[in-house]
Amino acid sequence: MAERIEALASLINELSKLPGIGSRSASRMAYYLLDQREEDVRTLAEAIWQAKKKIRICPVCQGFTDTPVCSICASEKRRSDIICVVAEPRDVAALERTHEFQGKYHVLHGVLSPGRNIGADDLRIRELLARLSDGTVREVIIATNPDVEGEATALYLARLIKPLGVQVTRIAHGIPVGGDLEYTDEVTLGQALSGRRQM
Amino acid sequence: MAERIEALASLINELSKLPGIGSRSASRMAYYLLDQREEDVRTLAEAIWQAKKKIRICPVCQGFTDTPVCSICASEKRRSDIICVVAEPRDVAALERTHEFQGKYHVLHGVLSPGRNIGADDLRIRELLARLSDGTVREVIIATNPDVEGEATALYLARLIKPLGVQVTRIAHGIPVGGDLEYTDEVTLGQALSGRRQM
Repeated sequence: MAERIEALASLINELSKLPGIGSRSASRMAYYLLDQREEDVRTLAEAIWQAKKKIRICPVCQGFTDTPVCSICASEKRRSDIICVVAEPRDVAALERTHEFQGKYHVLHGVLSPGRNIGADDLRIRELLARLSDGTVREVIIATNPDVEGEATALYLARLIKPLGVQVTRIAHGIPVGGDLEYTDEVTLGQALSGRRQM
Repeated sequence: MAERIEALASLINELSKLPGIGSRSASRMAYYLLDQREEDVRTLAEAIWQAKKKIRICPVCQGFTDTPVCSICASEKRRSDIICVVAEPRDVAALERTHEFQGKYHVLHGVLSPGRNIGADDLRIRELLARLSDGTVREVIIATNPDVEGEATALYLARLIKPLGVQVTRIAHGIPVGGDLEYTDEVTLGQALSGRRQM
């Protein structure tokens, strides 16, 4: 989809690198931006650049932060004896939206994946073990995705952490709220049965 | 979907203003960007800003250009006696991709729409009539969309231009190439019949 206007072609090219954006959507966005007021376009460009410039990795939990230590790690209101381990920074935001969890987080930045050549050294596991060394943490909840790689990572971490005398738990698998038994796959249904709780 | 990191929240907010981007996609894009290298993110932000800063409206055809007059208007290879009228700047790119049209363009920047309070004065019609005044142009092809507003605009322009002694034509309506008679709506099928051509 060649564009004769160079600045427009390069904008479409850059936008189409975004996840889920094909060349059609990129082109639509580009023409939309050219129709907007200059200050609105500048605000978008600035927001992109400022976010990248300001947001760093929290040295404690390895999640994103725009302060030296992230607000969750720095908070005195959060429990320090329980850490929830997630694969990606975005998973922290997803769990925070539930308002269910009062502990702290640890972000692995990926999961073990022999296929994509991602081993234990590529994840922030060393940093997690360091946080467990002083005996403050009593439970580690492993909240990686319930897929093959997420499960393998959970098992790997459990084997590593249990000998330290720390309890290791896994988030529950089951039927999503609002889901339908009839349309739930067998594996999930099996997990929902074996993970049943007293009422 | 509250985000506790301010720079991230404002990035997600800005991205979700883009057409076709909801808060989920915006959030996905934002986290994706934070995972990219700093220079790649800068390139995107720059591309957005540069496109907006460099691209202006061509004073002749009213399409987008990054030169004083757009490359099509300035080209000596393009026929000056035929103008194709489109509603939006992006339509020029769509028609150029066909490599079928050798004339010049005129962009209206919208279509007549009583519902959205867009009248003839809001479109670049005056600029079109000015281009027809010196007698160079012999044919005006009206390539607005084949919907109610596009048709109304086409009729309005035809009534305005014909008295100037300029031939006015309309792009053909019919079954899209690769389309299926069985699944074509009656109006399109009717147009395809009445617009039939000698083989």
